[in-house]
Amino acid sequence: MRPVAVIGIGKTAFGAFPDRDLRSLAVEAGRKCMEDAHVKPSQVEAFYLGNFAGPSFVGQNHLAPYIAGAMDITGVPCTRFEAACASSGSAFFHAVSAVGAGLYDVVLVGGVEKMTSQPTPKVTEILAGAGDMCGEGRAGATFPALFAMIARRHMYQYGTTREMLAAVAVKNHANGAKNPQAHMRKVITMEQALGGKPIADPLTVYDCSLISDGAAAVLIVPLERASEFTDKPARVLGIAQTSDQVALDQKEDITTFKAVKEAAQKAYKMAGVTANDIQFAEVHDCFTIAEIVASEDLGFVKKGEGGPYALQGCTALNGPRPLNTSGGLKSKGHPVGATGVAQICDVVAQIRGEAGERQLQRHSLGLAQNLGGSGATAVVTILGAAA
Amino acid sequence: MRPVAVIGIGKTAFGAFPDRDLRSLAVEAGRKCMEDAHVKPSQVEAFYLGNFAGPSFVGQNHLAPYIAGAMDITGVPCTRFEAACASSGSAFFHAVSAVGAGLYDVVLVGGVEKMTSQPTPKVTEILAGAGDMCGEGRAGATFPALFAMIARRHMYQYGTTREMLAAVAVKNHANGAKNPQAHMRKVITMEQALGGKPIADPLTVYDCSLISDGAAAVLIVPLERASEFTDKPARVLGIAQTSDQVALDQKEDITTFKAVKEAAQKAYKMAGVTANDIQFAEVHDCFTIAEIVASEDLGFVKKGEGGPYALQGCTALNGPRPLNTSGGLKSKGHPVGATGVAQICDVVAQIRGEAGERQLQRHSLGLAQNLGGSGATAVVTILGAAA
Repeated sequence: MRPVAVIGIGKTAFGAFPDRDLRSLAVEAGRKCMEDAHVKPSQVEAFYLGNFAGPSFVGQNHLAPYIAGAMDITGVPCTRFEAACASSGSAFFHAVSAVGAGLYDVVLVGGVEKMTSQPTPKVTEILAGAGDMCGEGRAGATFPALFAMIARRHMYQYGTTREMLAAVAVKNHANGAKNPQAHMRKVITMEQALGGKPIADPLTVYDCSLISDGAAAVLIVPLERASEFTDKPARVLGIAQTSDQVALDQKEDITTFKAVKEAAQKAYKMAGVTANDIQFAEVHDCFTIAEIVASEDLGFVKKGEGGPYALQGCTALNGPRPLNTSGGLKSKGHPVGATGVAQICDVVAQIRGEAGERQLQRHSLGLAQNLGGSGATAVVTILGAAA
Repeated sequence: MRPVAVIGIGKTAFGAFPDRDLRSLAVEAGRKCMEDAHVKPSQVEAFYLGNFAGPSFVGQNHLAPYIAGAMDITGVPCTRFEAACASSGSAFFHAVSAVGAGLYDVVLVGGVEKMTSQPTPKVTEILAGAGDMCGEGRAGATFPALFAMIARRHMYQYGTTREMLAAVAVKNHANGAKNPQAHMRKVITMEQALGGKPIADPLTVYDCSLISDGAAAVLIVPLERASEFTDKPARVLGIAQTSDQVALDQKEDITTFKAVKEAAQKAYKMAGVTANDIQFAEVHDCFTIAEIVASEDLGFVKKGEGGPYALQGCTALNGPRPLNTSGGLKSKGHPVGATGVAQICDVVAQIRGEAGERQLQRHSLGLAQNLGGSGATAVVTILGAAA
């Protein structure tokens, strides 16, 4: 594999946008990204799109050429990738693999979801399709219920507390409040987080990520060509996608995601780094417990120590290993098909030193972890300053 | 790109199977394919799945790890590709590209759709999502209407007749009647085809492909490793995926699919052959007019001559260039997400000499053409005997 660089990033704000359709969001992100990298549509050799459920949310399918055509990108492979909430992480993985292998030079990767046009119960039902609808789904378990079981078991096995979960929410809301593109820019207190409306015990509304509209895009090229487009490339040092069983009841241990651990090990190996070297990360906090599990699965802390790690402030903006400086899915928002690529944008913004109020001092080596369903798909990417 | 070979094929029968769910169909095809190639699940390095609308048809999303897990394939990238009716053609294109580029050695590619659990009007609505739902879709144009417009324009510009359309249906039904795995094994006469119930004038029910359940799978490896698995490999000589605008009203000329022409030219170039060299093909006859347009776009005949070519029997089993010896989407059936990979299976079966009653004398160089929507995605593959 030849080295691959991210030369452009573009995102819409995340939020509820009743006047915007899915395509216009994706096109806005794509155009911003091409502008950022000084790339014309005619230079794009392939378009990789992550989208989870456009057909179910808005009735539109065949989204890759639909969006590409509106950006004047035709005559090249335009393909939609679906891997639940890791859809655009998967699109990015396949795109990086293709550029790394020499199949293309200039590739645009997008992610988009338009969720708020459906009422919340319908959204929950559509999201449940990322689980096993013949098993856990038929039994009535939607994702809040599945992650509530994970949280409960984590509490039982490792002594994780409600305060530890709430600490993740408080921290991510604090970060999101500093992010002009975040869906919910609202600082919350520990008391508020603990007193939230119950959704699926022990999870309250403050433990759950947001239902959002939004899109994100990145442009990648071989590292050797990056300087043609930008003086601030970020390098993809390691990347891996792996899979596991979809149904929670088929997993040996529900307090860990095997696919995340495997993807992380592969990505660390490819990058030639260890978990300790990672300075900051965007992790998949679809629920607060998921961020705690991620910090363990990625090797930032030992198994069972993710809760105290969060509670002690180790993952805060001024902590030793900041997680989700963007505000995460909890506060930035979680338009599911956009999330994977949005994480890449957020890591690259830190690497470039363009994260504004959230800018970190140590920002040369970051990680993005994107999760599909309750861990059946995992994509882990390690990005670094190219210089 | 290193040469790539197809070492295994597996298909379910196509039809209406009220007692079978989507996953069991995909798993059956995958297992048959692995058995055919003597490959164990643990040897599979990546799983590429084409599916158009599982979430809309049966409420299940995140299909790649869902199906892979049931075949004991975990810990590797499992990804769903969606490109309307070219979904599994696109999955195959990306898989061949990845193996060709050296990313993997042993890759399983599947395609599946379970359509008959929904009533026909709902199926038509779901399929319409492959068009522009903000434009032609909102105006009420479903796919039969879009292809009726294409047929009408083709008649106007080139003198194509109802008899020519009907000749495609009669021929494909004759072929399908000889295919034990076809959905509709029913010989029809020209009179029947001409007298069919109108669907969207000038198209009758006999001009429309079938709503089917079914799955197909192929295994690919680098050609240099093919002999480890089989003594009858087929070689992927050329392959390309391209795209165009989704909406019919955005195309300059609706009697041709630009993306098909471009994909064909790229595939011919890669294979070092011309249209004249192609001995037989599986083409995307979602409607009879589509087979006529395909014969033109692929360069088998000049523009406008596809109708007479069909009427004169040139594309029949005993004609100079047989098209859709499987029965095509018209008679074999069209579980949309399975169609692209099923075409590859059918071409490989001919190349191997395993096409039974439909076996051709000249069968060493075949082509598969898979179309998404009204031509926004096209995948063209050229396969040949490896020896």
